[in-house]
Amino acid sequence: MDIDTLLSQVKSGEMNIEKAREYLKTLPYEDLGFAKLDHHRKLRSGYGEVIYCAGKTTEHLVQIYQSFYEKGSNVLGTRATPQQAQALCKALPQAQYDPLSRILQVIQTPVKQAGCVAICTGGTSDMGVAEEAAQTAEFLGARVQRIYDVGVAGIHRLLSKTTDLRAANCVVAVAGMEGALGGVIAGLVDKPVIAVPTSVGYGASFHGLSALLTMLNSCAEGISVVNIDNGFGAGYNAAQINRLALHDR
Amino acid sequence: MDIDTLLSQVKSGEMNIEKAREYLKTLPYEDLGFAKLDHHRKLRSGYGEVIYCAGKTTEHLVQIYQSFYEKGSNVLGTRATPQQAQALCKALPQAQYDPLSRILQVIQTPVKQAGCVAICTGGTSDMGVAEEAAQTAEFLGARVQRIYDVGVAGIHRLLSKTTDLRAANCVVAVAGMEGALGGVIAGLVDKPVIAVPTSVGYGASFHGLSALLTMLNSCAEGISVVNIDNGFGAGYNAAQINRLALHDR
Amino acid sequence: MDIDTLLSQVKSGEMNIEKAREYLKTLPYEDLGFAKLDHHRKLRSGYGEVIYCAGKTTEHLVQIYQSFYEKGSNVLGTRATPQQAQALCKALPQAQYDPLSRILQVIQTPVKQAGCVAICTGGTSDMGVAEEAAQTAEFLGARVQRIYDVGVAGIHRLLSKTTDLRAANCVVAVAGMEGALGGVIAGLVDKPVIAVPTSVGYGASFHGLSALLTMLNSCAEGISVVNIDNGFGAGYNAAQINRLALHDR
Amino acid sequence: MDIDTLLSQVKSGEMNIEKAREYLKTLPYEDLGFAKLDHHRKLRSGYGEVIYCAGKTTEHLVQIYQSFYEKGSNVLGTRATPQQAQALCKALPQAQYDPLSRILQVIQTPVKQAGCVAICTGGTSDMGVAEEAAQTAEFLGARVQRIYDVGVAGIHRLLSKTTDLRAANCVVAVAGMEGALGGVIAGLVDKPVIAVPTSVGYGASFHGLSALLTMLNSCAEGISVVNIDNGFGAGYNAAQINRLALHDR
Amino acid sequence: MDIDTLLSQVKSGEMNIEKAREYLKTLPYEDLGFAKLDHHRKLRSGYGEVIYCAGKTTEHLVQIYQSFYEKGSNVLGTRATPQQAQALCKALPQAQYDPLSRILQVIQTPVKQAGCVAICTGGTSDMGVAEEAAQTAEFLGARVQRIYDVGVAGIHRLLSKTTDLRAANCVVAVAGMEGALGGVIAGLVDKPVIAVPTSVGYGASFHGLSALLTMLNSCAEGISVVNIDNGFGAGYNAAQINRLALHDR
Amino acid sequence: MDIDTLLSQVKSGEMNIEKAREYLKTLPYEDLGFAKLDHHRKLRSGYGEVIYCAGKTTEHLVQIYQSFYEKGSNVLGTRATPQQAQALCKALPQAQYDPLSRILQVIQTPVKQAGCVAICTGGTSDMGVAEEAAQTAEFLGARVQRIYDVGVAGIHRLLSKTTDLRAANCVVAVAGMEGALGGVIAGLVDKPVIAVPTSVGYGASFHGLSALLTMLNSCAEGISVVNIDNGFGAGYNAAQINRLALHDR
Amino acid sequence: MDIDTLLSQVKSGEMNIEKAREYLKTLPYEDLGFAKLDHHRKLRSGYGEVIYCAGKTTEHLVQIYQSFYEKGSNVLGTRATPQQAQALCKALPQAQYDPLSRILQVIQTPVKQAGCVAICTGGTSDMGVAEEAAQTAEFLGARVQRIYDVGVAGIHRLLSKTTDLRAANCVVAVAGMEGALGGVIAGLVDKPVIAVPTSVGYGASFHGLSALLTMLNSCAEGISVVNIDNGFGAGYNAAQINRLALHDR
Amino acid sequence: MDIDTLLSQVKSGEMNIEKAREYLKTLPYEDLGFAKLDHHRKLRSGYGEVIYCAGKTTEHLVQIYQSFYEKGSNVLGTRATPQQAQALCKALPQAQYDPLSRILQVIQTPVKQAGCVAICTGGTSDMGVAEEAAQTAEFLGARVQRIYDVGVAGIHRLLSKTTDLRAANCVVAVAGMEGALGGVIAGLVDKPVIAVPTSVGYGASFHGLSALLTMLNSCAEGISVVNIDNGFGAGYNAAQINRLALHDR
Repeated sequence: MDIDTLLSQVKSGEMNIEKAREYLKTLPYEDLGFAKLDHHRKLRSGYGEVIYCAGKTTEHLVQIYQSFYEKGSNVLGTRATPQQAQALCKALPQAQYDPLSRILQVIQTPVKQAGCVAICTGGTSDMGVAEEAAQTAEFLGARVQRIYDVGVAGIHRLLSKTTDLRAANCVVAVAGMEGALGGVIAGLVDKPVIAVPTSVGYGASFHGLSALLTMLNSCAEGISVVNIDNGFGAGYNAAQINRLALHDR
Repeated sequence: MDIDTLLSQVKSGEMNIEKAREYLKTLPYEDLGFAKLDHHRKLRSGYGEVIYCAGKTTEHLVQIYQSFYEKGSNVLGTRATPQQAQALCKALPQAQYDPLSRILQVIQTPVKQAGCVAICTGGTSDMGVAEEAAQTAEFLGARVQRIYDVGVAGIHRLLSKTTDLRAANCVVAVAGMEGALGGVIAGLVDKPVIAVPTSVGYGASFHGLSALLTMLNSCAEGISVVNIDNGFGAGYNAAQINRLALHDR
Repeated sequence: MDIDTLLSQVKSGEMNIEKAREYLKTLPYEDLGFAKLDHHRKLRSGYGEVIYCAGKTTEHLVQIYQSFYEKGSNVLGTRATPQQAQALCKALPQAQYDPLSRILQVIQTPVKQAGCVAICTGGTSDMGVAEEAAQTAEFLGARVQRIYDVGVAGIHRLLSKTTDLRAANCVVAVAGMEGALGGVIAGLVDKPVIAVPTSVGYGASFHGLSALLTMLNSCAEGISVVNIDNGFGAGYNAAQINRLALHDR
Repeated sequence: MDIDTLLSQVKSGEMNIEKAREYLKTLPYEDLGFAKLDHHRKLRSGYGEVIYCAGKTTEHLVQIYQSFYEKGSNVLGTRATPQQAQALCKALPQAQYDPLSRILQVIQTPVKQAGCVAICTGGTSDMGVAEEAAQTAEFLGARVQRIYDVGVAGIHRLLSKTTDLRAANCVVAVAGMEGALGGVIAGLVDKPVIAVPTSVGYGASFHGLSALLTMLNSCAEGISVVNIDNGFGAGYNAAQINRLALHDR
Repeated sequence: MDIDTLLSQVKSGEMNIEKAREYLKTLPYEDLGFAKLDHHRKLRSGYGEVIYCAGKTTEHLVQIYQSFYEKGSNVLGTRATPQQAQALCKALPQAQYDPLSRILQVIQTPVKQAGCVAICTGGTSDMGVAEEAAQTAEFLGARVQRIYDVGVAGIHRLLSKTTDLRAANCVVAVAGMEGALGGVIAGLVDKPVIAVPTSVGYGASFHGLSALLTMLNSCAEGISVVNIDNGFGAGYNAAQINRLALHDR
Repeated sequence: MDIDTLLSQVKSGEMNIEKAREYLKTLPYEDLGFAKLDHHRKLRSGYGEVIYCAGKTTEHLVQIYQSFYEKGSNVLGTRATPQQAQALCKALPQAQYDPLSRILQVIQTPVKQAGCVAICTGGTSDMGVAEEAAQTAEFLGARVQRIYDVGVAGIHRLLSKTTDLRAANCVVAVAGMEGALGGVIAGLVDKPVIAVPTSVGYGASFHGLSALLTMLNSCAEGISVVNIDNGFGAGYNAAQINRLALHDR
Repeated sequence: MDIDTLLSQVKSGEMNIEKAREYLKTLPYEDLGFAKLDHHRKLRSGYGEVIYCAGKTTEHLVQIYQSFYEKGSNVLGTRATPQQAQALCKALPQAQYDPLSRILQVIQTPVKQAGCVAICTGGTSDMGVAEEAAQTAEFLGARVQRIYDVGVAGIHRLLSKTTDLRAANCVVAVAGMEGALGGVIAGLVDKPVIAVPTSVGYGASFHGLSALLTMLNSCAEGISVVNIDNGFGAGYNAAQINRLALHDR
Repeated sequence: MDIDTLLSQVKSGEMNIEKAREYLKTLPYEDLGFAKLDHHRKLRSGYGEVIYCAGKTTEHLVQIYQSFYEKGSNVLGTRATPQQAQALCKALPQAQYDPLSRILQVIQTPVKQAGCVAICTGGTSDMGVAEEAAQTAEFLGARVQRIYDVGVAGIHRLLSKTTDLRAANCVVAVAGMEGALGGVIAGLVDKPVIAVPTSVGYGASFHGLSALLTMLNSCAEGISVVNIDNGFGAGYNAAQINRLALHDR
């Protein structure tokens, strides 16, 4: 029974007040009409659905994709294995897999991209995480400017891109090992910088811990950090900020 | 010698090309006219100067404030000790100190506040860090909505503020101990959430490490994290995002 | 406006259904009548209020105690400093302070104690944390059996108390350094054991981390762990379990 | 020689007092008649035996199961590999294996389940650990209510289950990554909550450390924690508490 | 009632067998006559008592010393503060305090010292811990050879003492910072080496963790390790080994 | 040229003093006659050679064994893989491999075993490390008493072995997970206890770190610790102590 | 347009000053003529190129090598897998692979080696990292003296090499486990020592962390440290210092 | 007896060869004439003595300084407290104390400074450590170029100093928090860079751990690292390298 029916019955006297009050208390929360509480549709309205593929069985995954596909939704899956991708592509030939970013997409309605999010990496081995961020942001309507392999050990490479960096509404800085990229970029631009530590490296990089700590300790203003290798989180965040800048809320 | 003079001399033949090229190479970078490179003025243009007071001698600090004061600037100092505050207030009676946030301000031109940044805390002991964030955001032109003591152990307190949270362009979530506040909020709103772990707590909180890890691992979309107790960083970031939403760049 | 009023107005036609539905959505959650949602009163109903004193100003603390006192409640404050205690005792002579447990109580209605919770320590220096647990459990209606200084380095001391341990509905094991007490006790009894690591020790005890890990890794069945030095949490938990055993819910 | 014989011989003069005293000192401890000292039978009396399969050779494992089977006991094995399961099922067709929970059971006498233990998970990937807890509790006589995929990032999913949670004598909260589930639940119910951190996640989850710390630092009252991925321990503990509530000791 | 009385009563028929058996089961363990179970007297028989002074109140401490003094025992207290020492010396003028080792002794019967334990330090700042070890070993009957300030950064200093090192039954190696002393010594002698990491140092010594790890990882044969700063433990262990070599058990 | 020759030449005048002094300074250290400096033969004289097999190529390993075999030595190799064992047994049929301890031995002269070393484990999965300790001690002339599966969660199992434990000159305690075994044993005996943490376990055992910390923090007297899984080190140490007790130095 | 052209146009009036200034501001940094900013050629001028092979696809790698080969450069690749080596050797038969150091080189112009860098290891299992250092230093023009298997547990082995160590301009000390080698060497020589911790070991070596901390905490003067297993970094650094000593800059 | 005397006696027949050989074996190592083995004088010959003041008693310290003073040596003391300085200056008025670097010097013979070491800091709060490095290098004969407050958050400040950096034989990079300075500098110069992490910062800087890890993980070539806050070590190392470049060995 939805709220309107309940209130109608109260009005008509079909249900007395005591019983109605009792019912309201024990209603599943979402039945109260907080439509936006389903967090999966918050930002993506009009863009599609997101699936975290890691750990899901192939059968289950194919089912989810198909269900969304039949509703006409675009779907973005992250951390998909080649096996998952192969199975899905067989079942749903429209699916596209990018082994670098591990993103497995089904696009039925092309996404219009606007604004600008710049996505930078320290080295070429950070590109997998960067592409996860980039393709997530694009899926959510952001235009993405890729600026790869501009690590601080050769600072001129980064500096030559200053104009591009400043043109973006938000910058995503992806780096492993020393992880200093985010802090240097935040000193060059006046927009929010989202830093993504990567697990690239060896020895005292401790699987991304070193880069994570570097980024959290940056003295530059305007930088925040997401989990190690969390390209999706950074891309989502960047798309949110880009949309705010576009007044497209 | 500035660039115009140099170019004039090249044009007039006063300086030959070789010498000019040499000069350009060795010029201090800022002399090239990259006005925005001085990161201290990036966002704050029209708002004032920011000083990190911790570790500065009293004499030095008073001098810096006075110098900015004479130029007519507003000044925001963070992590000021009561001793520093006392010394400054004696020298500059316009200065105002808030012992909770440890912010030491001199406001000559009132700041116009617009948009909305919501700042939440898990408990009352997180308020010092939250106020550092709030007063920083206000100094930089954001209107701030304070929502304190809404920790997840009593989830209804937070839920009753859902409307306020959704009205903000950006939410700052300040919490120590378990640090779960940021993730729950990010599930309730569709705007960026900046999480600030605090060093409040004891035992296995390990001076904020527990809250930091919780926040980095949040499964909610749209959350990013700053350093433990870094209220300033969160407030700065939130003001940046708020300004983007205001199209006031 | 409470729910009954609203429903009455719907019934009478004073308020139309659309407006009522809108109102229900935006109501503060607790106004829906979830009386038990205020977690502070969950278990303690009939026992009194609990305050975490650490970090509260003296003025604030006295005010809280007085407010509860005037309502006739018993009050248990944890982690109170001697200064806080002195100030309160001056304002409220009924208050009693135990410097060992740092508990600051006001008892207006004597608490009836029933069932049995056994509280053990490895050494004498764990007694402060143990007393916090014991007095918390007593405040919440549990009878407490104290079994102190029975560390595993002299296992016979513990074994001689086996009968007492087995008579309890729940055992709290408080130990620092190696922290093996909880696991040995859990092997001796068939009731839940709540282990509390303490920060007592030096060197590689790392402020309680060693004891915490030991307890989490216990091979014995029926043991669970709370935060380092969290006597209150253990006492609370033990009282909950003791009440379940008493069918006093 | 058992104690009775010894005492008889003392009485009859067959053995002198000196020798008897000497004998008593060196007797194996269990010979003194502490029947309950064999911890493996403590709670399970009437329910069966428990085996930790990890690391045991297949031959050894089959032997143990068969020995218990011949005595008519129910047997619960945890952390069994598919290889172990296959070997056992061949030898003992009554055995049943659940690859999700890795539990390998032989049930000869159906277990009567009573009371209620609620078992919750933050996400679907925590289900393996949750099932280990659930099937353990069921094996030990508890009725189990499964409430899966109610992570705090979508808080309404959890809130809609409040009534179910409150009906249980004990709640087990299984969660990885941020691990905030336990604390939120403990704020909603007034029964003991046993939190199980899982190693699910990546990056700064550090194989469950993040969730472990979150749970230990929860500000909610009535929560305790077991080792990372220790579903068995939580299920055992919950069954103990459930039995206390049933007055079935 | 002691065991002899009990057995006599059984013999005489004063007590029946059933009751005797019951009594035996519930007797405090030590009453069974396991004289050596009181671990405090194990090795020290004939040497005296040991007290861990840290954390004990002055009143309590003086009482313990006096009680032992009246029984004629030698007493060794470790980690005594100057305040504790001052109070004891006032009450018991025979007491002697060494502020370096923080050892507070009362010697009524001079201890005969035999065999040889060599105690080495890496630097002069490790001497406090080394003296705790040395004076403990001496209290327990070992002759001690002190070899201080022979850190591996000047390896010739250590090598010039090779003969002395080889003459000992056991070597204690006390070192902070890099902590390499133990491993180098173990390579020079063929007797057990007990390594004591100290908390001396700064930065990445992490309060003794670095030295602890170094010592645990030594490639030399015949080295074992005690807790950071645990001079007492090393001295006790060395005295045990020295006594074995003296056939004085 | 050895020292005698040099001194003879000095005496005869063949070599002048200056040159002799120079020569002495630059002589390889071992040429000075410090016969015992070759640490590989220290204790083992008369017992044989020890090889750390891990990481060595099969070819290299076979060569080393054969070289020692030809000299008539007994050889003990630790951490040998099945592949290494297979290759050696083919080349040297006298070799014997124990897959549990990973020890690969060639015994040409049977070792006479004397004294007593007790080796205990907490659980059955600690047996591999325990056997490495036991077989090492036996190789070096110690008689070994194995006392396995006596973990503290069922304390009576351990207590029933007290007499055996007390009969040994040295006890090795091998345990993973909580690692409390060493401390409880040290409280029961008055001989040195060498504790070996194992990497057995999961979750918060952190690959043996938990057991290591527990053992370092033991409050019992007479315990020292070796590296995680270092059965060889413990066995070597125990054999050293056992030999001291036998006056067989 | 390069700077000379620009300046010529300014001089000739083809370009006005305003436009020139604008152009200079937005020029890519390297266009200003900072020829040495390309860090890849800094020291290696005349020696060749360096490639970090780890993580690169085989196709990409072969392409890079071929491109450098065609320009006549020597090429040094580090951390190359056997697969990468096999693929390259097929495409470029001049390539040479050393599976121990994982270095994959193409030498077209033989490198003249001068000066002296000594490279030491604690054990034989550190040789892979040592060879990476040695071959890197040789590639960059240093003569290398290899001194392997001189760990501190047998200190005489190291001491017998003192003369060789002192003859070098720089010493690289490679060691895992306890990692004490660097500190002992730094006490023997008066030239810079570069310490390389290795991940060789087990248990509490924590994948090189133990050796890293030991080296950072060395009390000897003149030692600095690089990342765990970073043979390349140490070899590069040593070659730099060796060149300074040769006045070959 | 020194070696010459011994050899003379052998020559003259005063001492027979056997006795001489015996004597040589047991001689203190330094008596063999390894003059340079006293590590304190290695590099400093002609410069003076170095004292680590931390933890030394005032009396002891004054004595050491006076003893060196009387021999005419220059003396450099590091980590001296104001109390130590005050006491020394009273006893030895020539002493000079710098509270920033905590260096306490007595210079009798002015030191001639040559070559060039550049010392940089990220912020002003790193200056204490930088001055320790600078004054150490100067004491050991290096000319020092100070380049302070050039942190990477405002990269242009650092770039404007490129010429100065490139003119040095060695660069010391001192930085806390994110610690990225060393890596950026190493990308700009082709001389060795010694990075010093500082404990400056808060939160996730973990007392310098973050900066330490950043520096160890730098991708730039030619960087090595010393302990947190170890300005002395960096200055010593830099002076060593500078001397090699000066061919002044």
